[in-house]
Amino acid sequence: MVYRIPDDGDTRQRAVCPSCHTIHYENPLNVVGTLPFWGAEGEKVLLCKRNIEPRRGYWTLPAGFMELGETTSEGAARETDEEAGAQIELLGLYTVMNVARVSQVHFYYRAKLLSDHFEPGHETQEAKLFEEHEIPWDDIAFKTVKSTLEAYFSDRKVGHFGIHTIDVA
Amino acid sequence: MVYRIPDDGDTRQRAVCPSCHTIHYENPLNVVGTLPFWGAEGEKVLLCKRNIEPRRGYWTLPAGFMELGETTSEGAARETDEEAGAQIELLGLYTVMNVARVSQVHFYYRAKLLSDHFEPGHETQEAKLFEEHEIPWDDIAFKTVKSTLEAYFSDRKVGHFGIHTIDVA
Repeated sequence: MVYRIPDDGDTRQRAVCPSCHTIHYENPLNVVGTLPFWGAEGEKVLLCKRNIEPRRGYWTLPAGFMELGETTSEGAARETDEEAGAQIELLGLYTVMNVARVSQVHFYYRAKLLSDHFEPGHETQEAKLFEEHEIPWDDIAFKTVKSTLEAYFSDRKVGHFGIHTIDVA
Repeated sequence: MVYRIPDDGDTRQRAVCPSCHTIHYENPLNVVGTLPFWGAEGEKVLLCKRNIEPRRGYWTLPAGFMELGETTSEGAARETDEEAGAQIELLGLYTVMNVARVSQVHFYYRAKLLSDHFEPGHETQEAKLFEEHEIPWDDIAFKTVKSTLEAYFSDRKVGHFGIHTIDVA
């Protein structure tokens, strides 16, 4: 693969196969997940301890790369099942975060847990409910997870959950 | 390239090079654009007549594929410059739309036009302002553009512009 500007009016360098001339476009990736909450007042949230790199051993909300043919909400529900084995009722889109440094857009949906029984998959060491004062803030895997948790506990106090758009450095 | 399930715990078929075994992941694409409005009450919107396929000759809002290293809002502003040469003040995220059939997510931002002078690029035949009753509804290029325009003219009547999440068939 060589990087050059294609001859089709494009203005950017693309990865081009020097043999067959196929242009391999590289584009931003979407990460989709949920913020699953539990309790009469949604006072607990579900975190998963990662069993895979990157950030193995750190805590995350259930999330992963969006796949072809699914919507962001379908992907978020799928990842919640795969990583936590959690039963949820998916609610609205909650955070839309750009992480331009790694060319990613992260989407989190609020999700009401229907049970506090979890069946984590092989990517998760442990799935566990946390109240706000129990959150392991120093051991959160990703900034977008931290931002989503902060927004949730802040919005809970005023009882209104709008959609947050955040640019993460 | 052959399609098979990689040996790394994945559960889906991926495009794999049979010679070097590189896995070429294929993921959903993001389309980013703006809804540029003009007039004391935002009563006119800017549409661009497409000069390229698909949907050449049909009208669209300025939008295109998000590039590596940019945020959704930066991409939306870039496309507005490239396709319409319009001077804007970018406002908030307005519509987030899934088009799962083609594995795309479309994002439109509201944008206040600072001038009614446009300099369309080579991808645009004509850039023109339309009031609601002038919109060529039968000649709109894409469903996501139509949905975004409908949301705008509906929200204008009540004076509140929230973020709309829409699944497009």
